[in-house]
Amino acid sequence: MLKNRITLQIPDWVAGFLDPRPAVHPSTEERMRLAIALAGQNIREQTGGPFGAAVFGPAGDLVSVGVNLVLSSGLSVWHAEMVALSLAQEAQGTHDLSSIGAFELVSSCEPCAMCLGAIPWTGIRSLVCGARDADARAVGFDEGAKPAGWPTALQARGIRVLTGILASESRLVLEDYARSGGVIY
Amino acid sequence: MLKNRITLQIPDWVAGFLDPRPAVHPSTEERMRLAIALAGQNIREQTGGPFGAAVFGPAGDLVSVGVNLVLSSGLSVWHAEMVALSLAQEAQGTHDLSSIGAFELVSSCEPCAMCLGAIPWTGIRSLVCGARDADARAVGFDEGAKPAGWPTALQARGIRVLTGILASESRLVLEDYARSGGVIY
Repeated sequence: MLKNRITLQIPDWVAGFLDPRPAVHPSTEERMRLAIALAGQNIREQTGGPFGAAVFGPAGDLVSVGVNLVLSSGLSVWHAEMVALSLAQEAQGTHDLSSIGAFELVSSCEPCAMCLGAIPWTGIRSLVCGARDADARAVGFDEGAKPAGWPTALQARGIRVLTGILASESRLVLEDYARSGGVIY
Repeated sequence: MLKNRITLQIPDWVAGFLDPRPAVHPSTEERMRLAIALAGQNIREQTGGPFGAAVFGPAGDLVSVGVNLVLSSGLSVWHAEMVALSLAQEAQGTHDLSSIGAFELVSSCEPCAMCLGAIPWTGIRSLVCGARDADARAVGFDEGAKPAGWPTALQARGIRVLTGILASESRLVLEDYARSGGVIY
């Protein structure tokens, strides 16, 4: 009998982490600060790599969060962005978020080739990134082969792209992880 | 309380579909025939789009299967390839299949940008594709922005790439789906 089921479970610490925080994050910087804090906490809790993400609704309301769970789940699909996007679709009950509003993905680092390819299929309308692709590569992460000029290609699909938001704070999380001897994969 | 869990469940018909079939598929064509049959059955069962995939172990042993479950799950991540790859990792207990052997992904169609980006992170060592990217685009599916020369880039990572295996049979499944008025997304 082949495996026929997979369950993704967000780590228990996330509920307590979110509890004291606001439900609405009006500014881009506040949203990015949440994604970076998730990345940092994911390292401290030893539940995965130094990456955090969140999806926000049209009013800046927090819809879902994600952290990198590759090592703890044993599934390479669960990058922070894929976790947050999938949980947002689960919460909204549709694979096409654009059918119900303008949702935004905020990620502590620019997406790898997989997450970049996944973004158009989710129907999100805005992508906000912290650390640069080069920052992730600098500490040893493989980002994969991305098409040249990918921000322009996303924008041509109607997806707004902002990069380098709180870039130095985002980069610091990656560097802390590498310095602490975290597994690079 | 935000959503904190996702469950992927392979459709019930898959067990009965696999039951009379061999556990080992020695040739590339036999493996592709299975992927194409999964795609066709997925249409007939109305559980998703016209795409099927399977992961095989070093001896041609069937490790996992996948069908496109985007519409039935409401999650855009569940392309056939992502389902098969994730179930293979779940079965083998590691996100890096290369750590235990040379696994092969067989897909009834060339991967979209997301699935292409995901492949290196899984540790598979061989990718076998049926219908061409252009065949999927011809019936209206969006394959996303893939880097030029992607087969060469995968091969440079040590992943063998074979395309156009049983291409006309694979294409037929796509065309049948489009003719039957299947949802294109």
